[in-house]
Amino acid sequence: MKLDPQVITFLIKCPDQKGIIASLTSFFYEEKFNIVSSQQYTNSIENTFFMRICLTSDVAVKLSKLQLEQRFDKLAKSFKIDWKVDYGDERKNIAIMVSHTNHNLYDLLRRHKEGNLLGDVQVIISNHLKLEPIAKMFEIPFYHIPNTKETKEKQELKIIEILLDNNIDLIVLARYMQILSKDFINQFKHQIINIHHSFLPAFQGANPYKRAYERGVKIIGATAHYATADLDEGPIIEQGVERISHDGTPAYLKKIGAEIETLVLAKAVNYHLNNQIIVDENKTVVFSETGS
Amino acid sequence: MKLDPQVITFLIKCPDQKGIIASLTSFFYEEKFNIVSSQQYTNSIENTFFMRICLTSDVAVKLSKLQLEQRFDKLAKSFKIDWKVDYGDERKNIAIMVSHTNHNLYDLLRRHKEGNLLGDVQVIISNHLKLEPIAKMFEIPFYHIPNTKETKEKQELKIIEILLDNNIDLIVLARYMQILSKDFINQFKHQIINIHHSFLPAFQGANPYKRAYERGVKIIGATAHYATADLDEGPIIEQGVERISHDGTPAYLKKIGAEIETLVLAKAVNYHLNNQIIVDENKTVVFSETGS
Amino acid sequence: MKLDPQVITFLIKCPDQKGIIASLTSFFYEEKFNIVSSQQYTNSIENTFFMRICLTSDVAVKLSKLQLEQRFDKLAKSFKIDWKVDYGDERKNIAIMVSHTNHNLYDLLRRHKEGNLLGDVQVIISNHLKLEPIAKMFEIPFYHIPNTKETKEKQELKIIEILLDNNIDLIVLARYMQILSKDFINQFKHQIINIHHSFLPAFQGANPYKRAYERGVKIIGATAHYATADLDEGPIIEQGVERISHDGTPAYLKKIGAEIETLVLAKAVNYHLNNQIIVDENKTVVFSETGS
Amino acid sequence: MKLDPQVITFLIKCPDQKGIIASLTSFFYEEKFNIVSSQQYTNSIENTFFMRICLTSDVAVKLSKLQLEQRFDKLAKSFKIDWKVDYGDERKNIAIMVSHTNHNLYDLLRRHKEGNLLGDVQVIISNHLKLEPIAKMFEIPFYHIPNTKETKEKQELKIIEILLDNNIDLIVLARYMQILSKDFINQFKHQIINIHHSFLPAFQGANPYKRAYERGVKIIGATAHYATADLDEGPIIEQGVERISHDGTPAYLKKIGAEIETLVLAKAVNYHLNNQIIVDENKTVVFSETGS
Repeated sequence: MKLDPQVITFLIKCPDQKGIIASLTSFFYEEKFNIVSSQQYTNSIENTFFMRICLTSDVAVKLSKLQLEQRFDKLAKSFKIDWKVDYGDERKNIAIMVSHTNHNLYDLLRRHKEGNLLGDVQVIISNHLKLEPIAKMFEIPFYHIPNTKETKEKQELKIIEILLDNNIDLIVLARYMQILSKDFINQFKHQIINIHHSFLPAFQGANPYKRAYERGVKIIGATAHYATADLDEGPIIEQGVERISHDGTPAYLKKIGAEIETLVLAKAVNYHLNNQIIVDENKTVVFSETGS
Repeated sequence: MKLDPQVITFLIKCPDQKGIIASLTSFFYEEKFNIVSSQQYTNSIENTFFMRICLTSDVAVKLSKLQLEQRFDKLAKSFKIDWKVDYGDERKNIAIMVSHTNHNLYDLLRRHKEGNLLGDVQVIISNHLKLEPIAKMFEIPFYHIPNTKETKEKQELKIIEILLDNNIDLIVLARYMQILSKDFINQFKHQIINIHHSFLPAFQGANPYKRAYERGVKIIGATAHYATADLDEGPIIEQGVERISHDGTPAYLKKIGAEIETLVLAKAVNYHLNNQIIVDENKTVVFSETGS
Repeated sequence: MKLDPQVITFLIKCPDQKGIIASLTSFFYEEKFNIVSSQQYTNSIENTFFMRICLTSDVAVKLSKLQLEQRFDKLAKSFKIDWKVDYGDERKNIAIMVSHTNHNLYDLLRRHKEGNLLGDVQVIISNHLKLEPIAKMFEIPFYHIPNTKETKEKQELKIIEILLDNNIDLIVLARYMQILSKDFINQFKHQIINIHHSFLPAFQGANPYKRAYERGVKIIGATAHYATADLDEGPIIEQGVERISHDGTPAYLKKIGAEIETLVLAKAVNYHLNNQIIVDENKTVVFSETGS
Repeated sequence: MKLDPQVITFLIKCPDQKGIIASLTSFFYEEKFNIVSSQQYTNSIENTFFMRICLTSDVAVKLSKLQLEQRFDKLAKSFKIDWKVDYGDERKNIAIMVSHTNHNLYDLLRRHKEGNLLGDVQVIISNHLKLEPIAKMFEIPFYHIPNTKETKEKQELKIIEILLDNNIDLIVLARYMQILSKDFINQFKHQIINIHHSFLPAFQGANPYKRAYERGVKIIGATAHYATADLDEGPIIEQGVERISHDGTPAYLKKIGAEIETLVLAKAVNYHLNNQIIVDENKTVVFSETGS
């Protein structure tokens, strides 16, 4: 699961049109790239085409990044393509934001240590001091930004400063129990992943495990999604579920739920870092890791 | 999975209290029954005790049903027990109500034929003629009760007549797209199982697969529940789910959903017929089939 | 899930090589086809490239099948491509072979009736008479070919005659408890799907549920695979599993297993009929139905 | 999930016999205990009865442990009961044995830190130095016992000394790639849990992920079991599985497998520590945590 610095990934979205695959793959072929994998999806209801294409180059590519992008952009314009490219030559920087709950934080940090997170956790930010010892143990800088109504705006400015100083690519809300302003979220559009502890859209909002208990559901879940201004309404990246029985107390649901949350959030984070996701309005296209 | 006529099942609900298991098991021991299985659950939040106890008798039990019930009722009164008993000597009668959709009907009928339904489908009732050929094929009487607003009450009276004439124990709403009146539902309290084609409480109401597609969920589901006056709000018996991907069209979701629906509904029906369910307010206690 | 007669599907396998996707997609683009979906997989260990490409044509294609195949074959030769094409203009013919067990037969036939099988069941062949009533009920011709050691070869000749007379494309061994000869299997290479009632390679051979019980496994399964001369060793198409507990008796495992078998076999059959499978030595590449 | 020191758990195994539940529950009732939960399972094939009964006491129990055990032993003798009791007043001590692989170690240690392991990791023992930094990070004593053929016996004696010095209740082989002697295993009978990285009995032995890849299975798994003298043949405690596709390389299978292993091993460890397991010859009875 290590990043290969030579793998270049293009994410592409455009109106579906004749010859699109042939044109795109021919472009990269003629520019002397090897196509490691090429994944497409056509939404035939919306008539939209999505592609994730991973490339390498045997010979040292003589093209500069700028040249490649200029040449590709010509093609892109003619097909009305929205695109981005990741050259795979820089590891991504992650900020984790937390409040009191420790399981998602522990789980992400142990995956980082195991070498299974496709990026580096640079900072941990919290509105509480409670989880600081975990940051210390894993030797990650910890920023305590307490929240008081008066300083909401100031608080977010401080957070933004930390994020920018650390060149953060991805913000993970690992049970951060504070609502972020619309401005904050828009500044990091599709760069903030939140974990919600229910199977959305069921039990949107507060206390989902308690409400799941009260409703008597037989399966509980968790959802990772991009944060948007509308709480718990953002594009869903990944969901997981587990069976429960009548004998599950709210405390037991919380415990089982923690297992689901950690798995779901870790998957979503790696999908993002591995350039597997294209956001399409309020949905996500998530290509498989293995490229087929 | 055949019914053993000798297995007697008691379903018991009462306030939790000291000595309850000892008293109940001693009663049956002293009355010369073998305990085939004994399953208990204590809801420690509500302080309620639930028990499912399956019994056989080696020697011909000299007690009549009436005598057994009278004796047990004494014990029951002292512990404030709600109870019912099934002597396992009569197969249950099932009515299936449908509209247009055929997969749940086909699936229940083939299970019946395979000998895997713990009861007999006696009648099929529909507000449409579309599925009559299936009833013919499986040689089950089919009643067409079309619905027009004027005759809603009359229509239900006809249905009730059919149900009573056939000594129906369980009514299965296998995608019956007509709302039943409060009176009808109350007359068959906890005897009507409905299948809803979503993972409740998500996508309650109409067109769940379309709405699941629009929300971009990564998992879809189905829910079997007892029908109550509040639509889709009754006690959940069983739920099932399946992963989908961004490429699932509403038509594909419908197809995958049909698989989930058939499995979930068949399980719920057999749980009910096998006396595995105790309803507790708006929830269900579902004991395992295997008795442990 | 209806077959669209206009969808042409090419299945392609060749050594991986530069420009392969560009060349293939350009070919179809230049021949005026629309690419409905294009799925690729590169096995980077074996250096093999696999593609499933689904095409339509807006204007009446002027090419005859022969012309298309001749033109494609030129390209195929230069890339050393193994390929086949399905024009989607003819429904596939299915033969089901059974012995005593009825659940897979019932399940396939009800799916056929529901319109969810991508082919037509033309004949049922059995070495026993037991399941003939099911064939009658579903109005499918039933052939009883009893097996006696003396007539093994003759018996197979009779079966082959039936299969050829009915233009059978796919033979489904739905718990056919008789070993087929190497010659028989080779005559219908990758056209025979068998369901084995265990999670292969665990419990290969006889009595898998009993052996699963004895080993005390916590999960049981079923496997659909192409039949090969080596029993239970053929390319796996699909597998399914279900959790069990210590309280599962062999009879209970059999019942739960029947659920898994029916789901797994139905999926494998539709994968085959929908041209989603490319066999690669002793493995299968199974592309997703939805084309992405 | 915290241990309540007042909960006393009896694990009981005996031949099935009339009145057994009544006698056992009456005994505890008469000794003034509250039955928090009572779980039974009757293996009707072997005619064996299993029970897990959890007790508390409102009033200070006047019985000493010795008195209780003496009284219970009388009953036990008359029913031929094998039993053990855990008074829940002491946390269990865990030793983790590892070689090179870090994911199971990290996962168990983070669960410990999160407070979700029902015992305390007292020592980490390894035949390699590689994972020592993890022990340091989590501040757990690390013992390096390298293995050379000459000192196999001596090596095990050193390990045994460490285990005894630390009053170890449970030894977790978290990918310990060294075979333990029969003597060692027998000294800690049903106290050693091993994780095997396949869905046993499939792919017993070395390199299961590679062999799973080569066989082309569509689902992979992991198995936690008690270690016995016969490698990978011990009583299975828990198994988990995950779907894979044709595109899963051995490296990908290893990564997905690591997820399954960590979940399965953590469950098995907590089942053991929470007194949920009764070993029955080469199988396990695993009662649910929630006591019903």
